[in-house]
Amino acid sequence: MAPSKHCVVAFQPLGRRGEVPEGISLLEAARRLGVGLSGVCGGIGVCATCRVIVPPECRDALNPVTPTEEERLSREDLARGVRLACRATIQDSLYVFVPPESLTASQRTQVEGRQTPVRLDPVVRACDLELPPATLSDLRSDGERIRDELGKPVRLDLEVLRSSPLALRDWGWRARAVLREDEIVALLPPGTPLLGVAIDLGTTKLAGYLLNLETGETLAAAGAMNPQLAYGEDVMARITYAMQELEGAQRLRQAAVEGLNGLIRDLCAQAGTFPEWVVDSVVVGNTAMHHLFLGLPTRPLGLAPYVPVESAPMDVRARDAGLILAPGAWVHLLPNIAGFVGADHVAALLAARMDEAAVPTLLLDIGTNTEICLAVEGELFSCSAASGPAFEGAHIRFGMRAAPGAVERVRILEGRVFWETVEGKPPVGICGSGILDAVAELRRAGILNGRGGWRENPSVHRTESGPEFTLVPAEVSGLGRAITISRKDVGEIQLAKGAIAAGWQVLLEEAGIQEEDIGRVVVAGAFGTYIDVRNAVALGLLPRIPLDRFEQVGNIAGTGARMALLSRAERERAARLARRVRYVELTAHPSFRERFARALDLP
Amino acid sequence: MAPSKHCVVAFQPLGRRGEVPEGISLLEAARRLGVGLSGVCGGIGVCATCRVIVPPECRDALNPVTPTEEERLSREDLARGVRLACRATIQDSLYVFVPPESLTASQRTQVEGRQTPVRLDPVVRACDLELPPATLSDLRSDGERIRDELGKPVRLDLEVLRSSPLALRDWGWRARAVLREDEIVALLPPGTPLLGVAIDLGTTKLAGYLLNLETGETLAAAGAMNPQLAYGEDVMARITYAMQELEGAQRLRQAAVEGLNGLIRDLCAQAGTFPEWVVDSVVVGNTAMHHLFLGLPTRPLGLAPYVPVESAPMDVRARDAGLILAPGAWVHLLPNIAGFVGADHVAALLAARMDEAAVPTLLLDIGTNTEICLAVEGELFSCSAASGPAFEGAHIRFGMRAAPGAVERVRILEGRVFWETVEGKPPVGICGSGILDAVAELRRAGILNGRGGWRENPSVHRTESGPEFTLVPAEVSGLGRAITISRKDVGEIQLAKGAIAAGWQVLLEEAGIQEEDIGRVVVAGAFGTYIDVRNAVALGLLPRIPLDRFEQVGNIAGTGARMALLSRAERERAARLARRVRYVELTAHPSFRERFARALDLP
Repeated sequence: MAPSKHCVVAFQPLGRRGEVPEGISLLEAARRLGVGLSGVCGGIGVCATCRVIVPPECRDALNPVTPTEEERLSREDLARGVRLACRATIQDSLYVFVPPESLTASQRTQVEGRQTPVRLDPVVRACDLELPPATLSDLRSDGERIRDELGKPVRLDLEVLRSSPLALRDWGWRARAVLREDEIVALLPPGTPLLGVAIDLGTTKLAGYLLNLETGETLAAAGAMNPQLAYGEDVMARITYAMQELEGAQRLRQAAVEGLNGLIRDLCAQAGTFPEWVVDSVVVGNTAMHHLFLGLPTRPLGLAPYVPVESAPMDVRARDAGLILAPGAWVHLLPNIAGFVGADHVAALLAARMDEAAVPTLLLDIGTNTEICLAVEGELFSCSAASGPAFEGAHIRFGMRAAPGAVERVRILEGRVFWETVEGKPPVGICGSGILDAVAELRRAGILNGRGGWRENPSVHRTESGPEFTLVPAEVSGLGRAITISRKDVGEIQLAKGAIAAGWQVLLEEAGIQEEDIGRVVVAGAFGTYIDVRNAVALGLLPRIPLDRFEQVGNIAGTGARMALLSRAERERAARLARRVRYVELTAHPSFRERFARALDLP
Repeated sequence: MAPSKHCVVAFQPLGRRGEVPEGISLLEAARRLGVGLSGVCGGIGVCATCRVIVPPECRDALNPVTPTEEERLSREDLARGVRLACRATIQDSLYVFVPPESLTASQRTQVEGRQTPVRLDPVVRACDLELPPATLSDLRSDGERIRDELGKPVRLDLEVLRSSPLALRDWGWRARAVLREDEIVALLPPGTPLLGVAIDLGTTKLAGYLLNLETGETLAAAGAMNPQLAYGEDVMARITYAMQELEGAQRLRQAAVEGLNGLIRDLCAQAGTFPEWVVDSVVVGNTAMHHLFLGLPTRPLGLAPYVPVESAPMDVRARDAGLILAPGAWVHLLPNIAGFVGADHVAALLAARMDEAAVPTLLLDIGTNTEICLAVEGELFSCSAASGPAFEGAHIRFGMRAAPGAVERVRILEGRVFWETVEGKPPVGICGSGILDAVAELRRAGILNGRGGWRENPSVHRTESGPEFTLVPAEVSGLGRAITISRKDVGEIQLAKGAIAAGWQVLLEEAGIQEEDIGRVVVAGAFGTYIDVRNAVALGLLPRIPLDRFEQVGNIAGTGARMALLSRAERERAARLARRVRYVELTAHPSFRERFARALDLP
């Protein structure tokens, strides 16, 4: 028997490649190479979640398109080379593209936004010093010695003067001076890289990135839960806590600061460096997170008319904010727009280049609060929709975050329920994208009616608290009992998607355009990245326009923060962007209430 | 009997005036009016310490010059209207001038340096705000609201944003914004005055002044001992403590900060205001005090070649320095010149206008370290002489600070010993000016020889530790035992005056001029203000030139600090001054050792 032929397969844009035996499916190849390609039905050709795009020059390296694919895929998809990875058999070496929606959740977070396409122009720069030592015939102070060497009248930050003179002597009068404008914010050991951190301080999650400011490279990325969760799930709960509890604000500030410092330590440990060597930082977050982190009063955010204390971009000493960075390092905070549209939204607008949108562009950053922006011919309209935490798994009976074992994708095909869990672990709950899928599929299968009520179905069982749909039977559940969906769960999803839909509809009205005029939709945020856009459109959460107009961009606020970290010009651009946005207060808008009521329905 | 005639007498420049009966002496009149005119001999016409100057138009209001005065006063003094207040009898209303050397110590500290002749140009300014309140139709942030009102893009300091927004609402959206460059450093209640503090952080004493920055007025002055005294008397002892003790530097910093905060609280209490309303500050001190206060490493100051960590002027947030001022207030620190010539010296040079000296001018700020500057034709030479703490009463057996009961002036006339104590209290010790007087008078009376040894004299008694001179017999001493002067006490004064004299002699050599070329001598510092210049010249501590070339100016460093507080131009002038000074390292100077050895002798 001749040895079986081996082919090289590459999955782009991930850059994962390797040898696999001829004759296996692309889905199997993906699994062997560690590519998290989705496959809800388990590779039997019914769910159509494992789509990949095969470039023309590689189409001959696969078997011809199968009848199943001709049935499951649209004419347009077939024309642009889409295949179902479970049906495509490898016959020769090739490369394929994996669209983000075909990746499992955990894979996507690893991939998203690794690059930040900006011209490098950080606010700090390094100067390598080699100083003549102090002697009895050269009695200059350390400060003078450094200024003379640099040839300009720089100031040394107090903490640099406190911490560095003895080290400077230990290093043989050599050091890397880090300058920010005319100030030295750090003296580092010779050869230290110039490092910065960009942080997205979310209501629920913290995301941090450690960057080399001389190359633009992201050296490490890390996430963590916001420790403020102990004091309330959403922004309003936290503001109330800060207002009502003695030292509540102080405790919330402390929690945020500790969370960020933990994240910074993680990032540095990953990259083998130290927080004291991190010389610049950018933090973005919504207005309440911004205020709570900085210790600004939140009472004005919690009471009508809900105004921020500060909306301009801020530069704050890291030490004043409580962050453990280089002695004199600063934190830059992007501007806020309104009480409920903050710096994280501005970061998203920056990263999505909303100020340059060539076609009407809608950006949604879906979370407990969903910030929405519509750019039409250079005008920017933004609002905040109170979507609640259902999409983060809260207020759902079996809801959970997108952790291993969370059902993240659901298909109901010919009466059979298929699901896929994070990391393929036995199912223990449902995360946001899973419950969205479930509701959409239940509606498509006719098990839910247009008001969100149950129709007669063998999978809907009566329980003490009302009828429930069994998503995962007890026999296969990792919980030891069935994972079900209740009427109340469906209702939570209706409220959340209703609030968001009413939000973008009001912005369309303000801009004077129609749903079908939208040329591009940027769906951001962790949940936005995991969802099946097809089902989100089906439910009316997203506008009913062709799917190729959607982009799922992951933590775009984090990307914006990284851009601002790498470039002074991007910080200025963000400030201009924030001033250009017209903020629309939804609760005060005349048509919001009616739109919301209508958007509760399941189409 | 006709009622006795009353006359109005005024003592200038103190401005003390009142009615006294005809026929009493000027000394008696001074006592009745609370003017601290010196009178060591008790008004018997022998000590000549109660000199006053009578202007020509008032000379007829007194009795003619007496034979005693003709004997005690020089021809020049008589010509310019000098009288002994104890011999001058009032016959009509008049005013007289009291030269500083005729005032008792406690009186002088009250008087010195009340005015600061600078053009008002503080670095902070006030803007009164009246803002439209936030409403649902005006959702601007507090920051935007303030910027729009001011019409410029100011930043609000983080601590201002933390502390002021709720107060702003309490004050009905009115406030005084305090601006420093483009930053708001405080939002104060409407109508609050603009306040600043100037502080001289001495090795031994702290002196503070609270000023109204809009009028230039000094609202309060206060002094205190430096709490660092607990860790060592002189600069070197403290640097050693900071280097050798774990957390020593931290403890010294804490002590300085607590001392200054106590002083600030005192000043505010005196003026009926609050530290949180003080919006700017200037601190001067020698280089070691500067470094210890700011928490800069002092090891480089304690080991050869003794260089400062920073010599440039510094602007530091008051909170970073640990001072309790307005939330965003800054501390300005004048520049240092060398390891042992610091910002207090620069402040003195500024206040004495040494950069404009029309004649060769010598400035001495006498303390534990004595900083000396010689200005000759626009060139400035400075050095630091290690004079030790003897002039502050330390290392002297009965030495004490110039507190009530300290012998502050001594005369030996025709074998009798006269002394005067601070506030006239029973003698309990000898302060610096007293011991200086005593040594000079003992030498003049021939009781000490030129090497500082005792000659045979009835007042010199043998004791277990050697012969001693009885200054105050046990019967009149407030201690219950005699107050004496030992050979070792004399030796301490010889060392101190030798170091200072060698210092200014080296500077004369560097500048290429002679002792008699000196046109003006500015004697600064608390001790310098109390001393009898005549005796200091007699001992060789000060140059042997006519007495009318001497000025005793009190805490001139404090005056310089106040000038820098009131004027941006003065801060810039101080920076230029510091750069112009040529620092002379005495210990490395070829002729210092020999000059010092010779200057130990008592002329």
